[in-house]
Amino acid sequence: MIDVVQLASLLIAAESVTPARGPVFDVLEAALVPIGFAVERLVHGEAPDGPVENLLATRGTSGPHLAFAGHVDVVPPGDGWSADAFAPQQRDGLLVGRGAVDMKGAVAAFIAAAARVPADAGRLTLIITGDEEGPATFGTVSLIERMRERGVLPELCVVGEPTSVAALGDMVKIGRRGSVNIWIDVPGRQGHVAYPQLADNPIPRLVAILAELDALVLDQGSDWFQPSNLEITDVTVGNPATNVIPARATARISIRFNDLQRGQDLAERIAAIVHRHAPEAIVTPRISGEAFLTAPGPLSALVSAAVLEVTGRTPELSTTGGTSDARFLRALCPVVEFGLLNATMHKADEAVAIADLEQLRDIYARIIQRAFSTPAA
Amino acid sequence: MIDVVQLASLLIAAESVTPARGPVFDVLEAALVPIGFAVERLVHGEAPDGPVENLLATRGTSGPHLAFAGHVDVVPPGDGWSADAFAPQQRDGLLVGRGAVDMKGAVAAFIAAAARVPADAGRLTLIITGDEEGPATFGTVSLIERMRERGVLPELCVVGEPTSVAALGDMVKIGRRGSVNIWIDVPGRQGHVAYPQLADNPIPRLVAILAELDALVLDQGSDWFQPSNLEITDVTVGNPATNVIPARATARISIRFNDLQRGQDLAERIAAIVHRHAPEAIVTPRISGEAFLTAPGPLSALVSAAVLEVTGRTPELSTTGGTSDARFLRALCPVVEFGLLNATMHKADEAVAIADLEQLRDIYARIIQRAFSTPAA
Ligand SMILES: [Zn+2]
Ligand SMILES: [Zn+2]
Repeated sequence: MIDVVQLASLLIAAESVTPARGPVFDVLEAALVPIGFAVERLVHGEAPDGPVENLLATRGTSGPHLAFAGHVDVVPPGDGWSADAFAPQQRDGLLVGRGAVDMKGAVAAFIAAAARVPADAGRLTLIITGDEEGPATFGTVSLIERMRERGVLPELCVVGEPTSVAALGDMVKIGRRGSVNIWIDVPGRQGHVAYPQLADNPIPRLVAILAELDALVLDQGSDWFQPSNLEITDVTVGNPATNVIPARATARISIRFNDLQRGQDLAERIAAIVHRHAPEAIVTPRISGEAFLTAPGPLSALVSAAVLEVTGRTPELSTTGGTSDARFLRALCPVVEFGLLNATMHKADEAVAIADLEQLRDIYARIIQRAFSTPAA
Repeated sequence: MIDVVQLASLLIAAESVTPARGPVFDVLEAALVPIGFAVERLVHGEAPDGPVENLLATRGTSGPHLAFAGHVDVVPPGDGWSADAFAPQQRDGLLVGRGAVDMKGAVAAFIAAAARVPADAGRLTLIITGDEEGPATFGTVSLIERMRERGVLPELCVVGEPTSVAALGDMVKIGRRGSVNIWIDVPGRQGHVAYPQLADNPIPRLVAILAELDALVLDQGSDWFQPSNLEITDVTVGNPATNVIPARATARISIRFNDLQRGQDLAERIAAIVHRHAPEAIVTPRISGEAFLTAPGPLSALVSAAVLEVTGRTPELSTTGGTSDARFLRALCPVVEFGLLNATMHKADEAVAIADLEQLRDIYARIIQRAFSTPAA
């Protein structure tokens, strides 16, 4: 038996601000080997985004193949903690520390669940990265490559990110919106405000572009997604001189989009609008991920049933929120995300209810058992 | 006799990046005292805008009273000079150095002109500041106060700023547009782009404000002025995080306005537009000067006649360009501005044609003689 609270505490105490490597993976390895996992630890990448450590753990040789994906890196503690963020504390039924819900608690719960299931009942793979909160350049993407090399190809995957909102089990994520950031750089010609005819102010063109982008309705949403949304996240000229017309004006937008859109199409649509107002403008898109959906089916039904059995709740199937590594894992097999409450993630005094940790362990155990006893989705 | 080129060279060599004091005023005093001026040197103000030195020189006790106003501070040299900006050089008929046209050359020309006119022919006052290129807080404004205290009240004033465009004498300024800068600060509520409903993005409101301001037609111009002009000179959010909706967005506009407008009215008109889009926005106007006009009359006629006599050109009477200390001096008496070519002012290798310096000395001498021989305007 593995004590989920103790294992979560050991993981929290192994400080691992992104990118993670070393001690936190030692804790994982020490927990996984005794319960029958073969552990491979891989270090990838170079500064500034690396090096990053990742871990692949496999158990079982036949039967249905379930994967659990997660991360053991955490965001920096920030200010406002009532105690050391990396000295886990139990108080008022809570376990407090950076990573408690996002997502060392869920990693501990899954390992404790695996410990309760016979090692020969089916195949289990743990896909654990040290680079989810950072640029994710050398994290899950590297692990998927390694899995393909080794022929480790799961049939179902659960990502343990915090998805619950008000009570454990109230939400399961069956997809995520895509995300694209687009930089817009409008050149002009610098000059003195007293002689505007000798200058070419780029700001009015940028304002016209942004006014048109702000009025854009991308779509009305789809069956499982809310409408795609465009936010203007930055505008910068940075001209300190009151009597100078500036030489360039830049902006950045962020689009979170549903499965009716593709990142590249959106980037081209935005570029066309920009260039109609400012033919010389430079438009630089960076697509973080496409929208994806694991349409409600056997996997979401399996997870929902396990949640209902333990908590009495039927989870809402949702595609809201930010991106996660599920965007990479979907290339392997059907993926859903289910984990702890997200209320304190990335905040001071991040905390998980100890009762939730234990229930999550039980839910994950039911998910493993159900996956092993049903044909693959 | 005073050699205008030599005096201009001495003034340039007395390095005096704004705010000026000390050596450059020693040069002035040494030139003025021998030709009959009583010189008063005044140091005003404290850091950061001061201390600033100013000089008031008076000659004559009766007859028409003409003032000449100018500055001996200069803008920093900046890059790109082919030689030391403060080591005046004569080459190819040019005198090169920081301040050659703006406006140590004109100050030298006026002093050389005064040297050619008998000391008892009328009253002359030189109003020379060391703080025109800077904030102008402790410059001409302080001198005007001192003149009022002493009862030095000229009837006509010529400001020696560079007003000529393509050839010496092609333009005289009979007024200036007013100037107001307005800061616009739109607050919002920070949040994550994945959850825009929990945030309040201030950028769309600022964009709507700026689009409306950019479309504004303030007026069609007046008899002696071009239309008032509004430029958006800065927009700054400064949000480095691609997934964050920012908490505030700011912009700055600059309006150069004619005699149909008043700075305060414009500030109120802009604030009303801003508050219609963003009631919480903070609008901060700073009026640098109101528009003013010395309507064409005896003074402009006198200056034009002197220009025509020396150069053969009839100057255009104009109100274009930036602000100058004429905005303060107009409170004393009719003011016009006339000086050297403005092509190289504030630039690298600032230079004046030596022939222009000598012609300007002759024009100023004719202006003094004409002022002394005609009744006050
Ligand atoms: Zn996470
Ligand atoms: Zn000047």
